[in-house]
Amino acid sequence: MLSKEAEHVKGFAPEVAWVTEAGDTKLNERLAIRPTSETIIYPSYSKWIRSWKNLPLKYNQWVNVVRWEFNNPVLFFRTREFLFNEGHTVFATEKEALAEGPQIRKAYEKVVEEFMALPGIYGRKTNKEKFAGAVFTEKIHYMLSNSRVIEGPCFHHDGQNFAKAYDIKFLDKNGKEEYAWQNTWAISTRMLGAMFAIHSDNKGLVLPPKVAENKIVIIPILFDKTKEKVLKLAEKIKKELNSFSPILDEREDFSPGRKFSEWELKGIPLRIEIGPKDLEKNQVTIVKRNDSKKLEIKVSSLKKEIPKLLEQIQTELYNNAKKLLNSNTEKTENKKQMIQFIKDKKMVLVPMCSSEKCEDVLKDETGGAKTLFIDPKNSSVKNSKCIICNKPADYWVYVGKTY
Amino acid sequence: MLSKEAEHVKGFAPEVAWVTEAGDTKLNERLAIRPTSETIIYPSYSKWIRSWKNLPLKYNQWVNVVRWEFNNPVLFFRTREFLFNEGHTVFATEKEALAEGPQIRKAYEKVVEEFMALPGIYGRKTNKEKFAGAVFTEKIHYMLSNSRVIEGPCFHHDGQNFAKAYDIKFLDKNGKEEYAWQNTWAISTRMLGAMFAIHSDNKGLVLPPKVAENKIVIIPILFDKTKEKVLKLAEKIKKELNSFSPILDEREDFSPGRKFSEWELKGIPLRIEIGPKDLEKNQVTIVKRNDSKKLEIKVSSLKKEIPKLLEQIQTELYNNAKKLLNSNTEKTENKKQMIQFIKDKKMVLVPMCSSEKCEDVLKDETGGAKTLFIDPKNSSVKNSKCIICNKPADYWVYVGKTY
Repeated sequence: MLSKEAEHVKGFAPEVAWVTEAGDTKLNERLAIRPTSETIIYPSYSKWIRSWKNLPLKYNQWVNVVRWEFNNPVLFFRTREFLFNEGHTVFATEKEALAEGPQIRKAYEKVVEEFMALPGIYGRKTNKEKFAGAVFTEKIHYMLSNSRVIEGPCFHHDGQNFAKAYDIKFLDKNGKEEYAWQNTWAISTRMLGAMFAIHSDNKGLVLPPKVAENKIVIIPILFDKTKEKVLKLAEKIKKELNSFSPILDEREDFSPGRKFSEWELKGIPLRIEIGPKDLEKNQVTIVKRNDSKKLEIKVSSLKKEIPKLLEQIQTELYNNAKKLLNSNTEKTENKKQMIQFIKDKKMVLVPMCSSEKCEDVLKDETGGAKTLFIDPKNSSVKNSKCIICNKPADYWVYVGKTY
Repeated sequence: MLSKEAEHVKGFAPEVAWVTEAGDTKLNERLAIRPTSETIIYPSYSKWIRSWKNLPLKYNQWVNVVRWEFNNPVLFFRTREFLFNEGHTVFATEKEALAEGPQIRKAYEKVVEEFMALPGIYGRKTNKEKFAGAVFTEKIHYMLSNSRVIEGPCFHHDGQNFAKAYDIKFLDKNGKEEYAWQNTWAISTRMLGAMFAIHSDNKGLVLPPKVAENKIVIIPILFDKTKEKVLKLAEKIKKELNSFSPILDEREDFSPGRKFSEWELKGIPLRIEIGPKDLEKNQVTIVKRNDSKKLEIKVSSLKKEIPKLLEQIQTELYNNAKKLLNSNTEKTENKKQMIQFIKDKKMVLVPMCSSEKCEDVLKDETGGAKTLFIDPKNSSVKNSKCIICNKPADYWVYVGKTY
């Protein structure tokens, strides 16, 4: 969608792509490609919402947005166009608006933790790092193996800020005119990038079983003498394991080794090999994609064992990512040590005051690290000094480098 | 995605949107917004495909495209940006490529006929109306209540045309270099427009049950004395019908009538009303969204009756659309009569020769009607003359107006 509301997109102005020509025709008016949706949605909200009876209003959409990044794009993490889920919700009271936060967090965590096997840390941004229009911003943060932090799903409580800017008012039960309370929340295809980067290895993609469409690939090892019998067993097993959408790779023009690599590259969680020796023993050989471990399993036990193995892989991926996150996190009250930790590619928990100037200094002195989120455990900071200015600290805050 | 392959997009040139500025910066090179994907995908195919072992190659994606329509946009039918499913497949032989057609047709028909309850007619385009790069084009066609024809899912057999243009070659089993055979196929969110337009009525949306996320809305009729009991029954029924994702609208600040209108507007297939009288008789009142028919059903039979009613609505919607299609189709060999039929908003089956000039004349003389598809029944045309030029006809072809 192209928005004509050029006057509202000032916040994103440096990142707006402008269409000025169509075919051979110069347009009379240049049109902005949507970098965000507030400017399209909120003027409509202002028209639709009249009374408390229209509230709450909850809109949820998937949409492509374009942000003209001038830095180098990184596939899936930072690209000029990406697919975005965004919710824009409006409430009659602050209390209802605030109560939505934990609901959204839970929904997003379910997708990312339970399906993508990515453990994250949920935390609130500092004033400097929050979304400009919000009262506060909370995000889930993930860690890659290069110790860069990825900002994941986010929740902004906007208070009445946008309501005042876009004139979103309603008559309450007493007939009094009030500004509405709003939230914005989002998740994007960037989480796929995090999932690929965190679980995959030098052989290619590693897909968590709950995400993988085809959870199994069956590779019959074909020799002239036993081919027919092996294929028959492979077909039988494919049918039996139908609920896992197995792929049967019976191509004869490729060697088993070549097939192994191909399916490893594509991240299929389990490989079932069936050769003449397996046939004799009425068993198959199973290889787990995540750690290459081999198991021999009786054909008669497959239906029982496969779900357990898939569950196991899912848990192992989650636990490995959790280990990565924990082992790359440090705590210090000493500035020199913090700078060294960041050089060593760690995320560091430090005491800081809430001055934005200190955050600028932090960025300068660490070569680009920024505050990530305030310690969600709310550990006491009473006796600590800001790691930058040495004045009394306001909170413990994680700092590190992000994409 | 923005493509730099400006030289390849000439076919779409009048419809290309050009980005020339980003923020305050003029770009050195203007960038085209993707109007189609061939120019992005096929140069990669040319690099990836080396041997017959790489074939078939089948890519399927959902993507937003932008086409700078200069005519008035019609929401869902003809908009500047739309979401598009496109398949780009490559085969080693013409036979394999041609065999894909019926598979694709079947998959698309399943979505549109079975889920959206839209009967269509599958047919091949004339040479003039086919996609420029294709050997032939086939589409499914649907009819709206204003007798405009909507072109739905399409299948293009590209032969070796793109392979030659983009140099997509492979070594066959004998080591000989060959051009590959390709197909392209697509469906878009335009089908949602067809579904909305064909089934809906003056009260709002009518959703086919198989598409509706919430298939039922339960509206308790609340009076002070019986409120508690009615709500209890409503909750019980909601649980029992859980698999149909029912909505229970227990808001007390809205009248039942106001609630009826709201959910009719949103297209929920079945409304269950529960009032004090229903309570006494241990029954509910059910209203079908598609024809407003009321039924009284015992609470104990609900679980059995609901799936039947939903199935019935699905069938009724399909049959009504089928009636619309049939009753707006005429056949003639007389030009004057054809012109009158088109004025009367019909789709007309006529004999024509295959000259493109005759199609131009047809358009002129009918105020914009075009050939839609060649009679898929292949009725004999031996003794008929082209309705335009009077020379021997080549086929029976449907003509009419489209969006």
